[in-house]
Amino acid sequence: MCRWLAYSGEPLKPSLVILDAQHSLVAQSLNSPLGAETVNGDGFGFGWYPKDAERSTAAIFHSTEPAWNDTNLRELTSSIESPLFFSHVRAAAEPPIQQSNCHPFRHENWLFMHNGAIIDFKKIKRELTLAVDPSLYPDILGTTDSEVLFHLALTLGMKDDPIAGLGAAITMVEKVGREAGIGFPMQGTVAMTDGATIWAVRYSSAGRSRSLFHSVDTATVREMYPDREQFRLFGDTAQLVVSEPLNDLPGLFREVPESTAVVLNHGAYEHRPFLDAG
Amino acid sequence: MCRWLAYSGEPLKPSLVILDAQHSLVAQSLNSPLGAETVNGDGFGFGWYPKDAERSTAAIFHSTEPAWNDTNLRELTSSIESPLFFSHVRAAAEPPIQQSNCHPFRHENWLFMHNGAIIDFKKIKRELTLAVDPSLYPDILGTTDSEVLFHLALTLGMKDDPIAGLGAAITMVEKVGREAGIGFPMQGTVAMTDGATIWAVRYSSAGRSRSLFHSVDTATVREMYPDREQFRLFGDTAQLVVSEPLNDLPGLFREVPESTAVVLNHGAYEHRPFLDAG
Amino acid sequence: MCRWLAYSGEPLKPSLVILDAQHSLVAQSLNSPLGAETVNGDGFGFGWYPKDAERSTAAIFHSTEPAWNDTNLRELTSSIESPLFFSHVRAAAEPPIQQSNCHPFRHENWLFMHNGAIIDFKKIKRELTLAVDPSLYPDILGTTDSEVLFHLALTLGMKDDPIAGLGAAITMVEKVGREAGIGFPMQGTVAMTDGATIWAVRYSSAGRSRSLFHSVDTATVREMYPDREQFRLFGDTAQLVVSEPLNDLPGLFREVPESTAVVLNHGAYEHRPFLDAG
Amino acid sequence: MCRWLAYSGEPLKPSLVILDAQHSLVAQSLNSPLGAETVNGDGFGFGWYPKDAERSTAAIFHSTEPAWNDTNLRELTSSIESPLFFSHVRAAAEPPIQQSNCHPFRHENWLFMHNGAIIDFKKIKRELTLAVDPSLYPDILGTTDSEVLFHLALTLGMKDDPIAGLGAAITMVEKVGREAGIGFPMQGTVAMTDGATIWAVRYSSAGRSRSLFHSVDTATVREMYPDREQFRLFGDTAQLVVSEPLNDLPGLFREVPESTAVVLNHGAYEHRPFLDAG
Repeated sequence: MCRWLAYSGEPLKPSLVILDAQHSLVAQSLNSPLGAETVNGDGFGFGWYPKDAERSTAAIFHSTEPAWNDTNLRELTSSIESPLFFSHVRAAAEPPIQQSNCHPFRHENWLFMHNGAIIDFKKIKRELTLAVDPSLYPDILGTTDSEVLFHLALTLGMKDDPIAGLGAAITMVEKVGREAGIGFPMQGTVAMTDGATIWAVRYSSAGRSRSLFHSVDTATVREMYPDREQFRLFGDTAQLVVSEPLNDLPGLFREVPESTAVVLNHGAYEHRPFLDAG
Repeated sequence: MCRWLAYSGEPLKPSLVILDAQHSLVAQSLNSPLGAETVNGDGFGFGWYPKDAERSTAAIFHSTEPAWNDTNLRELTSSIESPLFFSHVRAAAEPPIQQSNCHPFRHENWLFMHNGAIIDFKKIKRELTLAVDPSLYPDILGTTDSEVLFHLALTLGMKDDPIAGLGAAITMVEKVGREAGIGFPMQGTVAMTDGATIWAVRYSSAGRSRSLFHSVDTATVREMYPDREQFRLFGDTAQLVVSEPLNDLPGLFREVPESTAVVLNHGAYEHRPFLDAG
Repeated sequence: MCRWLAYSGEPLKPSLVILDAQHSLVAQSLNSPLGAETVNGDGFGFGWYPKDAERSTAAIFHSTEPAWNDTNLRELTSSIESPLFFSHVRAAAEPPIQQSNCHPFRHENWLFMHNGAIIDFKKIKRELTLAVDPSLYPDILGTTDSEVLFHLALTLGMKDDPIAGLGAAITMVEKVGREAGIGFPMQGTVAMTDGATIWAVRYSSAGRSRSLFHSVDTATVREMYPDREQFRLFGDTAQLVVSEPLNDLPGLFREVPESTAVVLNHGAYEHRPFLDAG
Repeated sequence: MCRWLAYSGEPLKPSLVILDAQHSLVAQSLNSPLGAETVNGDGFGFGWYPKDAERSTAAIFHSTEPAWNDTNLRELTSSIESPLFFSHVRAAAEPPIQQSNCHPFRHENWLFMHNGAIIDFKKIKRELTLAVDPSLYPDILGTTDSEVLFHLALTLGMKDDPIAGLGAAITMVEKVGREAGIGFPMQGTVAMTDGATIWAVRYSSAGRSRSLFHSVDTATVREMYPDREQFRLFGDTAQLVVSEPLNDLPGLFREVPESTAVVLNHGAYEHRPFLDAG
């Protein structure tokens, strides 16, 4: 269910990774080798922080069309440059297919996206939604598990400590889910950003999570593939977190282990245990 | 906000009233003389009980496009006949424009649509939504006040007594709204059907409700306008309830008074006081 | 490029074959085992002749959304019955994805749909379009090769003799194409109907055509699978022509040979050589 | 039929004029005081030359939704800045409503948009389309008169001399139209740009053209309205051409006379007689 990609670094034309790479996100929308579903055609989203922006909030483009033939997405992502962007293609568990169900979701300067599911969500949707802070409640516009998870994380401190806030939200999902008889309530990978740092998490209650990778540093990439022109378009601090590698070249992407959070910040990264690592 | 139309009687080609009448519902979508908004272009819906159906539930066609140029709506409503149908054109207070926000809404064999608003809905959305029966909660798929009102009415007995159930729901809206400082919480007209009877209500907390009319009986119509060919297409028990008259001919439509429910059943109708008439 | 299905016989609820069969047309839209493309998600169409209709023309529902999650398609095809309908899911060679590029196409009482392509169509689009009768020219609303082929066939006598008219159109495509240096200009399968008879053709210049099958007669089906309840829903004269079999049960579908036209009429069928058989 | 807006000058956030002005283009989509139609809800387009772009071609965003509730349009136009952009809201004479019928149209580094119509276009569509250069013919993707007019102008020299090229195209439309019995074949206003200069034309065969205005220079604006903060957002060379004034303040917009071309270039403008001025 879904595939996503997050970039931070020198301002980059997003089409390079969303459209032009061998296994670009849009290529994955039509044929995802590692995804739980082959086709991710139930809408997409693109959220980007403008270059030189006075605004610190991200702009968002959501569409219910399949990404592979959307001409607006091609036009937009090849005419701007951005130092930090999220993009997501959706494979919906069920209708409705609507823009308010497209990722990334936004709150103030934050973006959030998710690949996976809260299992048997309908059973516990009401209880989880009630746990959202009443002041945030009217911001929930769609019907997805992911949007509720985001607002739970916001309620539980994500803006102060993203990993702790998401951890508390997932802990609540697991508690409420197990009380409702759901064996393994949480599945998936999550990306969060405040416009400067990216936090990405791979976690599932069953310990068998959706795939997640991040890129190695640009210097290493150039050393490994000195003749590849496209890699010269990436700056020294460029970093990608992706549901699956964007090409078949060995050595470019490193798998994120189970129950792990990755923190990406100005070209550096760090792995941290997430939830059950103690 | 919005205009709607409900028909019951001999099976009728819906395009006659939705598209071909002088002030058809689609004509009202582009230019509504009596509406609170001139343009009702934020999606539409059409729900119909099939003729000779084994199924007792209505089928629904929802679209986010303006009704006036939608070719699918023309094709559909001119190729079927139905003994009972609802249709609605929307003027949204705000985004999202999505199919799950289009009327009519459906529950089992019931249809429900609304023209108007719960005033300052965001202030009381959470409290009203929590009052919906938990078993009905997951059925709420959109973000509108109308859909919450429908599920409140279902929670409060609409299936046993539609007028009492809707009355209880509106009474709760007024109570919760006034506690939140909203002077006149409820505004609008509502149509409900179980597939056999139509209940239509005109009511607002301020006593200044959106317009509502119903047709006079077919025999009278034919007597008044013996030369009009189009009226021969309507059977003896044909009845319409409409946000505004479908043409300028005098005598065809009767205004529903404030705080009044109309019950239409097999060609007969009855007015009943609603809520504040005691 | 695309998959399609045509039915004639006793009035049938179209959802039975479009949605509910093991390899229904909608299932093929997400995963087509025999198609040139796996995914056929670039819009769809459904054209049906109403039961008991005064109208002899088909009604059409076109959508640019993927068929697999379209709720309107489910509502429509499960609430009507039709004695003859066409349905089509599209895999576009390129944008634009728009309703005017969705099959089936319609002219008066005729419907037409196509799976395949005129190879290198851009090279010869102008010459082929100029060969369309000027009175038909303004009816071309989309950008597809298929719609031009349809209007060429209409120009060349399809309404008098569908197989001869389509044959003349394909012969012109091959002549103009070869003059432009295109080795094998025509590829595909075509379905045509006047609302009573269905003509289906499998043909390609290279002799390696897209797959095409038609059902065996209902009596045989019932004899082979006496315990299958779903087959009792099909009447004695029910016939299907399909891009690929709707289920894995052996014996239900017969492959149409290369360069062959099938004529289906009131429960009987006939194979005829097409174009290169002499 | 339609309203449009063109800007050139210092890089500007397009939402200022497309969304935030008193009679912004989006406000005109819902209610156009001077338009031939009140509602322009049949899709819209936005074409912009990126700031600091390596690319000299414009990017384009087309949508079939009404502009007034389109969240993507708001996001996009408030997160970029552009030194030259076109935007257009459409009131279609008839379906299809599709992205390929949305303005502006693009060819290489050129943009083109039109408000008005070729009268009785269906009668002469074939002859005009045949007059388009065969190498340009496959680029016509929609069904509008405007797109054919653009490709005729390109055929007749627009890239070398935009006013002469458009003049030759309109002369051909008038000749072919009159031969077909159309009294006044051409109606409307047109905007063209190569990414540096804007050429805008107001012309109709009957001498009663759609409205067209352009802004006075920024220095004058600031002198007239020294206290208006929003005018400080416009640079010294900012210029607008608009179907109708963006606000009710006197003195800000100058009407373009009948049969006149306006050339806008780096803050200067020039009026030239167009076609019948001799």
